[in-house]
Amino acid sequence: MKITGKQIIGYSNKSGAGSFKSVAIADNNSAPYVFEEGTAENVDAAAKKATEAFKTYKLIPTTTRVKFLEAIASEINSIREVLVATAQQETHLPQPRLNGEIDRTINQINLFVNLLKEGSWVNAIIDTANPQRQPLPKPHICQMLKPLGVTAVFGASNFPFAFSVAGGDTISALAAGCPVIYKAHFGHPVTSELVGNCIAEAAKKTGMPDGIFSLIQGKTTESGKALVTHKLVKAVGFTGSLAGGKALFDLVVKRDVPIPVYAEMGSVNPVFLLPGKLAEDAVSVAKTLAASNTMGVGQFCTNPGIILMVKSAATEEFLAQYKSSLSEAVGGKMLTDAIAGSYDKGIEQLRSLQSLKLLCAGVAGEGDTAVPHAFTISGKEFLKDKTLFEEYFGPVAIHVIADDTKQLTEIAETIPGQLTVSVWANQNDVTEFEDLFNILEEKAGRIMINNAPTGVEVTHAMIHGGPFPATTDSRTTSVGSQAIYRFTRPVCFQNYPQQLLPAELQNNNPLGIWRKVDGEMTKNATA
Amino acid sequence: MKITGKQIIGYSNKSGAGSFKSVAIADNNSAPYVFEEGTAENVDAAAKKATEAFKTYKLIPTTTRVKFLEAIASEINSIREVLVATAQQETHLPQPRLNGEIDRTINQINLFVNLLKEGSWVNAIIDTANPQRQPLPKPHICQMLKPLGVTAVFGASNFPFAFSVAGGDTISALAAGCPVIYKAHFGHPVTSELVGNCIAEAAKKTGMPDGIFSLIQGKTTESGKALVTHKLVKAVGFTGSLAGGKALFDLVVKRDVPIPVYAEMGSVNPVFLLPGKLAEDAVSVAKTLAASNTMGVGQFCTNPGIILMVKSAATEEFLAQYKSSLSEAVGGKMLTDAIAGSYDKGIEQLRSLQSLKLLCAGVAGEGDTAVPHAFTISGKEFLKDKTLFEEYFGPVAIHVIADDTKQLTEIAETIPGQLTVSVWANQNDVTEFEDLFNILEEKAGRIMINNAPTGVEVTHAMIHGGPFPATTDSRTTSVGSQAIYRFTRPVCFQNYPQQLLPAELQNNNPLGIWRKVDGEMTKNATA
Repeated sequence: MKITGKQIIGYSNKSGAGSFKSVAIADNNSAPYVFEEGTAENVDAAAKKATEAFKTYKLIPTTTRVKFLEAIASEINSIREVLVATAQQETHLPQPRLNGEIDRTINQINLFVNLLKEGSWVNAIIDTANPQRQPLPKPHICQMLKPLGVTAVFGASNFPFAFSVAGGDTISALAAGCPVIYKAHFGHPVTSELVGNCIAEAAKKTGMPDGIFSLIQGKTTESGKALVTHKLVKAVGFTGSLAGGKALFDLVVKRDVPIPVYAEMGSVNPVFLLPGKLAEDAVSVAKTLAASNTMGVGQFCTNPGIILMVKSAATEEFLAQYKSSLSEAVGGKMLTDAIAGSYDKGIEQLRSLQSLKLLCAGVAGEGDTAVPHAFTISGKEFLKDKTLFEEYFGPVAIHVIADDTKQLTEIAETIPGQLTVSVWANQNDVTEFEDLFNILEEKAGRIMINNAPTGVEVTHAMIHGGPFPATTDSRTTSVGSQAIYRFTRPVCFQNYPQQLLPAELQNNNPLGIWRKVDGEMTKNATA
Repeated sequence: MKITGKQIIGYSNKSGAGSFKSVAIADNNSAPYVFEEGTAENVDAAAKKATEAFKTYKLIPTTTRVKFLEAIASEINSIREVLVATAQQETHLPQPRLNGEIDRTINQINLFVNLLKEGSWVNAIIDTANPQRQPLPKPHICQMLKPLGVTAVFGASNFPFAFSVAGGDTISALAAGCPVIYKAHFGHPVTSELVGNCIAEAAKKTGMPDGIFSLIQGKTTESGKALVTHKLVKAVGFTGSLAGGKALFDLVVKRDVPIPVYAEMGSVNPVFLLPGKLAEDAVSVAKTLAASNTMGVGQFCTNPGIILMVKSAATEEFLAQYKSSLSEAVGGKMLTDAIAGSYDKGIEQLRSLQSLKLLCAGVAGEGDTAVPHAFTISGKEFLKDKTLFEEYFGPVAIHVIADDTKQLTEIAETIPGQLTVSVWANQNDVTEFEDLFNILEEKAGRIMINNAPTGVEVTHAMIHGGPFPATTDSRTTSVGSQAIYRFTRPVCFQNYPQQLLPAELQNNNPLGIWRKVDGEMTKNATA
């Protein structure tokens, strides 16, 4: 395993300026790897190469694009053991989880491969001509989605594979026909270089143009700023903190030419425990939520950070079991020292609040670990303090005890945008709390019943998104096949000769895809 | 016809502050109408009512929403003669054009009515459960589009019906399930009040909640600013100038909670005349383009403002005919005095440029009219002056004569975002200029061959949009059925009981709509 510590600019490695050290080391005796900081010049070189590459890439047949994506999966799989071992050093995540995450990453690539092979995703719409129409003939008009162009992607700290170099943002952009310039998270630069090389290798093997993919390393924010403000960059994907995502958004909207920013910035994922369900299942719900909150040291975007319920005997039972489960939960090492520092500071802050009572804390693990925590607060006090809706990244939950269901509904009205909202409900609750469900529908990208929010399926119907501040664009998702639509725009062709139309829009439908023709979905050829 | 000059706030008329006068008068002897300026308080009242209305409106059955839209069309049609006469006074557009525009407005409503009746537009996606999956059961996950909420719409000066009170933005937002607060264009306040009353009347007759629609009058920008920065407003639709649209965009992105802005800001709609076509058809193309450029006193968003060609004998023939056609074109009165003033100033500016030569001017009409103009410039000079891509709203075109096809392609590369690009080409040109078509595809929302850009069909496949600065969001259209998607976001439901799912997502598919189930399009029920 050779690590250069340089930027990957298309098919070349380029030096940066300044340096930072990796956490990972080749073996227990050697020194950490040294990485060069990507510069504005590196970004500019990548953007120019990517723009050139786009001219070719947007025209290559889908079958070739599919081969490229498949080759990425294959390259990653071929060095799976090295990747897992490296990511384990860099992120402190356990081996089975990382192995599973590689599976997820490969499955995600396959989802887009299948989407491209099937072909209907381009949203082909055709309105046929009517030369006899009075007073004027009606022209033939059709449209389909086309790629936006060079896309900047910022990887997340908490998923070194599935939301990183070859993660959902990169793969959906490449699938859409967009070159990608990837800014690696400084938490796992070695893993990033390794996966970056997999993509470069796959690109070479399948004859992709130089510049289809570049990777910029860096611990400072300079290269990221250069990237989102570069005039050749046409879209931005980001997974990370609210502060980071909003900062990028604020930079982008000041550009001469604004571009879309898809920042997924996490949330507190409120969980509503309804009375009927709680009376039936307090113990098992408590166990499930304690496990969900502490899983992976609480470092999931969909971690349940706020749990809401109405005062009752069942609520006491729930809290007793939650306390008992959490008290046995052992803390783990967090992704980076900075994240661990923030968590400790956050817990200190929560402990200092008069309105919160400590329910319990978990067990410190070996070495420097984040200890799970749970607090309780009354509904009345919770309504007074809007800062409690801010995310504390890590294994901590605030249990809100409302006086009654009216207060619970009142709290629901105040919830800011979330990735997920979960409700635990029995049949009776479902009928009784219809108004609550109608409120909650406006608050999140995904609402679930009797499921823990952690665990995001990679499917067609998944939405991993939601109203601000969960994301900067509630109209989209960063997980699942619909993620591809972030990197496209429709182009309309009027009165075009058949030979000039893309295959997707030609009368005889050579790709056999679903199309909307004169308002009807069909796979038939048009006249 | 009783005109109040007040704001329509749901089902009440409210006073504003300050006043401005209409152009229209009830008859030739009376005084103009006086309109009150909408205030921030009026906007706040409308936003609060609309938010309340949304709670009901988002839940009413589609069949009822359809009745509301149909009633709007019917109310408009019932006062068609008054509307045309009033709009004629206010906009100086001719009667047949205004009558046709009312037809277009009604057809547009019917397009959305049919879209709602058919029902598949909600993009229902279902991934069925697999309880047997290892290591974890797969939950049932589904998604569909839901309305964003209260929508602000700014009407255009140049289409007093089709892009105004009951125009595409308002109707697509209402169809999506969003209440609308409409800011009327000060150029036609009387027409706006009349159409606003039609919507209010239709809402009452079909039992819509108070606040589903409000209309704010105003000549200053104050109420518009209050509208787009109001925290209860969730989306903005706008048709107008680049300066106006960009100013709204810049206000919106500074909000605590950013929301989508769909500003359609016009463009110069470049027209490429390829050599083969010009050699065959110079005279008829010249006649068509001169007519397109001067139609409606050049006041269409898709007016062909820049016409590009390569130096040749056919080009000379084209210019001679264009000159001849334009010289006979009679000027007309523009929409407002401000617009007429801008046009005259723009022509003065173009006349003063060393690089431009006057090709010809048309004939002044009776009274205060905008005289059609055409200029020529060399490709070399044109490449030097990026300001020539700015829109001069009115009947003026700049003819760019490139030295050769290489220079023509070079110019194509520099085109900023456009609503449309048109190419005039024969079979040979289509083959020879493939690279040019590939470049142009990135420049506009709609590309057409051998069609004039004016004339925007209201169909499923239409895109009236394009990259910035033509619009602020190239992923959307403001004309055609796809316009509805601007006012929606997907919501994902996981592990939901059937009774709580919207009809669109229930297993037995009670609405009989197209859905994507486990990756396949089908109208079948799911297990």
